Amino acid sequence: MSGDKEPEKHLLRHVTAQQLGQLKKKALEARELSYSPYSKFRVGCCILTKENKFVLGANVENASYGGAICAERCAAVKAVTGGMKEWLAIAISGDRMEDTISPCGICRQFIREFASGEFPVIMLNGDGSKTVVKPFEELLPLSFGPDSL
Amino acid sequence: MSGDKEPEKHLLRHVTAQQLGQLKKKALEARELSYSPYSKFRVGCCILTKENKFVLGANVENASYGGAICAERCAAVKAVTGGMKEWLAIAISGDRMEDTISPCGICRQFIREFASGEFPVIMLNGDGSKTVVKPFEELLPLSFGPDSL
Amino acid sequence: MSGDKEPEKHLLRHVTAQQLGQLKKKALEARELSYSPYSKFRVGCCILTKENKFVLGANVENASYGGAICAERCAAVKAVTGGMKEWLAIAISGDRMEDTISPCGICRQFIREFASGEFPVIMLNGDGSKTVVKPFEELLPLSFGPDSL
Amino acid sequence: MSGDKEPEKHLLRHVTAQQLGQLKKKALEARELSYSPYSKFRVGCCILTKENKFVLGANVENASYGGAICAERCAAVKAVTGGMKEWLAIAISGDRMEDTISPCGICRQFIREFASGEFPVIMLNGDGSKTVVKPFEELLPLSFGPDSL
Ligand SMILES: [Zn+2]
Ligand SMILES: [Zn+2]
Ligand SMILES: [Zn+2]
Ligand SMILES: [Zn+2]
Repeated sequence: MSGDKEPEKHLLRHVTAQQLGQLKKKALEARELSYSPYSKFRVGCCILTKENKFVLGANVENASYGGAICAERCAAVKAVTGGMKEWLAIAISGDRMEDTISPCGICRQFIREFASGEFPVIMLNGDGSKTVVKPFEELLPLSFGPDSL
Repeated sequence: MSGDKEPEKHLLRHVTAQQLGQLKKKALEARELSYSPYSKFRVGCCILTKENKFVLGANVENASYGGAICAERCAAVKAVTGGMKEWLAIAISGDRMEDTISPCGICRQFIREFASGEFPVIMLNGDGSKTVVKPFEELLPLSFGPDSL
Repeated sequence: MSGDKEPEKHLLRHVTAQQLGQLKKKALEARELSYSPYSKFRVGCCILTKENKFVLGANVENASYGGAICAERCAAVKAVTGGMKEWLAIAISGDRMEDTISPCGICRQFIREFASGEFPVIMLNGDGSKTVVKPFEELLPLSFGPDSL
Repeated sequence: MSGDKEPEKHLLRHVTAQQLGQLKKKALEARELSYSPYSKFRVGCCILTKENKFVLGANVENASYGGAICAERCAAVKAVTGGMKEWLAIAISGDRMEDTISPCGICRQFIREFASGEFPVIMLNGDGSKTVVKPFEELLPLSFGPDSL
């Protein structure tokens, strides 16, 4: 993180400091829910919905590797099928301490369906001591979305 | 359904009549949660877990068709990341009245990770007036699972 | 394999002994084309098309495990986009000597789009000394296909 | 396209004008190979490999929408299992005249495994009269790749 927190503050203007704290904490805790016997790479995720609900997700892998569903898509289907399609922010955590985790392209595509360009994506390292926040459109520019069909 | 209900009764011996009624009802209702603007093909699903919880799922599609997550996988990741990896039965519904719906191979593969061979799969038509029940191993024989690696 | 080869012979009636030999050989060789740094589980595949072409495939994995494409789907997209949508047989190989490999449910679903119920699936062990042959419909019974929509 | 072609020229410095012409032409032609009965949205793709081979791809869909494999991933598995893992450029075409097509996030993730940050992605409209060229890293910034695990 650069010292300049202004863009990040603007991005998170719809999220209170308390909500942000909860969101990070829950994203870190969500790793406990991971089923990842193949990669042994646990990922946790939390989506804060417009209704102020925190929806947790974790990666669920499969013996056929291509069957794996990431933490972000897990949380997304839970939110959507829970009737919550509008989201304020998403936070994602992995176990690595040295780097913050980044959502894969499959999940960016899945989220694209529901997120605005300004949707804040909060990427954490293993204990939340490092944080990177980006607006969704910076992670999937020139995206292929509902309007592309 | 044949008139001979004995194999089905045996298969569902861990599920009470009341639970079965609930399971079907919830699988039918779950279609309301579907996000399927591309196929306009709503699918609902309900998993009954060992803890007697009913976990609902519905299909969530994407502008990139390959990004779609079916109802069964939706319910499965909810159950697994809800700490419930042991399941008593799954029920699935579509909108077609004339036929019962069948899980796709992707979902069979995903379920394979958690289901025993005798896990009952209950396939419904649009109002639940038709039902087919099969043990999981009949739907994915000679499966590729955790032991195959 | 049981000693009774009659069902298998019937299944392979559109394939000559020479073609069958080639098909197995190529499915075994195709493992060399595998990109599988994550699972280290190489899979090879060969589809014999109606035009008498042998189309090879191998698994291609991804750092995001869910992005992996199996050998069977690799060969299938090559055949389809090569203008060859009608197939006589498919053979699949893994590295395990003790068991023959089995296609995952994702690939069964993908193949479903192009295969008839009698399409022969030839499953091999690591050196082709063990072989199991099944008609496609036995591997994906009650399938979800184009007619299900 | 802006009038300033300098960044694009730099990006395509390893591709001759003749190769670029061929690449676009083949990406447009590749749409003919599409199997897309569900979306009726044909996509074509061509990868130019370091060996100066043009590898074509097209989207192949499935009755289970999540089974679809896009044109880009089709071409990618063909190149990789053809022994060609180093690529000079990729071109993609759709049928829309008004906009250039954009690769979905799933395909960006798949390509990530093999592409450098400067890998040029050429996006075309329906007849190639509009072109947008971007370096891969601009389409999937902060990517999740082999080093992330
Ligand atoms: Zn992901
Ligand atoms: Zn499915
Ligand atoms: Zn497979
Ligand atoms: Zn794509």
